[in-house]
Amino acid sequence: MITFEQSLDIIRENIAKIIYPSHPDQLYAPIRYILDLGGKRARPALVLLACNLYKDDVSDSIQPALAWEVFHNFTLMHDDVMDHADIRRGKPTVHKVWNENTAILSGDSMLILAYQILAKAPADVVKPLLDLFSKTAAEICEGQQLDMEFEARQDVTEEEYLEMICLKTAVMMGACLKSGAMVGGAKMTDMNLLYEFGINLGLAFQIKDDLLDIYGNPAVFGKAIGRDILCNKKTYFLVNALRLAGNEDKKSLLNWLEASSYNENEKIRGVTAIYDKLLLKQHAEEKMKILYEKSLSSLEMVDLPERKKTVLYEFAKQLMEREH
Amino acid sequence: MITFEQSLDIIRENIAKIIYPSHPDQLYAPIRYILDLGGKRARPALVLLACNLYKDDVSDSIQPALAWEVFHNFTLMHDDVMDHADIRRGKPTVHKVWNENTAILSGDSMLILAYQILAKAPADVVKPLLDLFSKTAAEICEGQQLDMEFEARQDVTEEEYLEMICLKTAVMMGACLKSGAMVGGAKMTDMNLLYEFGINLGLAFQIKDDLLDIYGNPAVFGKAIGRDILCNKKTYFLVNALRLAGNEDKKSLLNWLEASSYNENEKIRGVTAIYDKLLLKQHAEEKMKILYEKSLSSLEMVDLPERKKTVLYEFAKQLMEREH
Repeated sequence: MITFEQSLDIIRENIAKIIYPSHPDQLYAPIRYILDLGGKRARPALVLLACNLYKDDVSDSIQPALAWEVFHNFTLMHDDVMDHADIRRGKPTVHKVWNENTAILSGDSMLILAYQILAKAPADVVKPLLDLFSKTAAEICEGQQLDMEFEARQDVTEEEYLEMICLKTAVMMGACLKSGAMVGGAKMTDMNLLYEFGINLGLAFQIKDDLLDIYGNPAVFGKAIGRDILCNKKTYFLVNALRLAGNEDKKSLLNWLEASSYNENEKIRGVTAIYDKLLLKQHAEEKMKILYEKSLSSLEMVDLPERKKTVLYEFAKQLMEREH
Repeated sequence: MITFEQSLDIIRENIAKIIYPSHPDQLYAPIRYILDLGGKRARPALVLLACNLYKDDVSDSIQPALAWEVFHNFTLMHDDVMDHADIRRGKPTVHKVWNENTAILSGDSMLILAYQILAKAPADVVKPLLDLFSKTAAEICEGQQLDMEFEARQDVTEEEYLEMICLKTAVMMGACLKSGAMVGGAKMTDMNLLYEFGINLGLAFQIKDDLLDIYGNPAVFGKAIGRDILCNKKTYFLVNALRLAGNEDKKSLLNWLEASSYNENEKIRGVTAIYDKLLLKQHAEEKMKILYEKSLSSLEMVDLPERKKTVLYEFAKQLMEREH
């Protein structure tokens, strides 16, 4: 059995080995750039861990794992163009270093590269992997589309919010686990349980992300607090605040959303005060707990000795307890 | 044996049958929109014809053919964003009807859709088809990158130009033919000969495209004459004119390229006069003839009775003689 850390090491080592054509350099350099920015690499690590549940040798799952990581970074490259984001992992985004056209076209090449890497999986699983990969990729685009549409709406329901984060974030966690299990030779019921485990954990992960943006410890969080508040992102908090706030608070909240000039700290304090008053931190923690428990009950049903699953229980626990 | 027209009919009928998810509509409506704009549909028709060389029943090649057509239209959607093009096939482009973000994200979904359709090919050819598709798709992005880089350069060589149009245009024609042959069960040598036939025909096709922009009959051409001249596109003509022009003509040409305000007809007349003086129409026709003959000699070597190949000889001939 490999540990989560060992899995990350294998991923890092193999990302460094990806070979890019050298010509035209302007097309491939941005791909190298964004992949070299780092990131948690948790998704591809999950592919290896899920494979390892069924097989000691995880080498067959390395290429599918890389395909997911390349795909994930492709979405970041295009999302940054669409969101006009200047900074990614503390560095200028691709369209800032180069330009928008380069970010669009290199992103396209990167999506194709992800498929090329995926096709290196063992022949007997290429077809089901390909179907899962494409289905999930399409869903992630749908999630991004909903996220953009929500920007202009103040009436997003919690259900719609959950659908959006499921598509944009959670399905990939589920699909990473499922593809590792697929390469490992798991039976269908296990693959689907691992997928469900990933989905619910992914939902909880995203709500935690929303929570840390507001209540994270600045010393530990590593990013500025309140960025979602400043850009009016439809988070679990904002969606529920718009739904639950009384007349006066709702008016105040809408004022903050529509304000074109303001003091940043004041806006963060003002919006957070409304969240506090509505006990949304407790709401979110409650919701996360439900999702976390749902995820664990799927994992419990996976037909394997408990000791095999320890690494995934640990991963889930750490995701819930993370402070950054 | 099916005719080219019958092949087109099958393609049209099956494009109309593609099912798009209905939600989110803003993501999928642009895909339907661009595919409904029409176009020649020659590429997917070639897939069917190449399959038909080896198999009477072409139904297994329909999905791969559609995958190519969806992919081709994906490239148009993103190219139009990158080129800031307002009109495509006489209608407003996707980013004009919707917006740039929609064109980027719907394009991404469309590339994924192309892979989903490709995966519906018979199981035994999915892997080689996938490899050919991804390799070609990557090359087409490289071609677009070179095309964009050429915009800022006045020293593009004929060789570089040919590399660019090979990547941007010709490889797809070759790959369409090869994938049809693959589904039909052709042997490797035949597949490669058909690929070469497509490459050289594609190169000739693009030079013809460049030629018609200048010397086309406006009554037949269907598009305005001189659009490439007005946007300083690095065509076969411009690249060679910059190389062959004497001091005075080169100076005049560079003046036209750098002019920021001019009378459009004057610019078209001025640049065309230089092309005429340098006999570039004859050069281009000579080059096309060489490429056409190269393409035919590949087709001749395909190990099939000549009567089977008639439809492809006819297609090539019509491509060379086309006036629009």
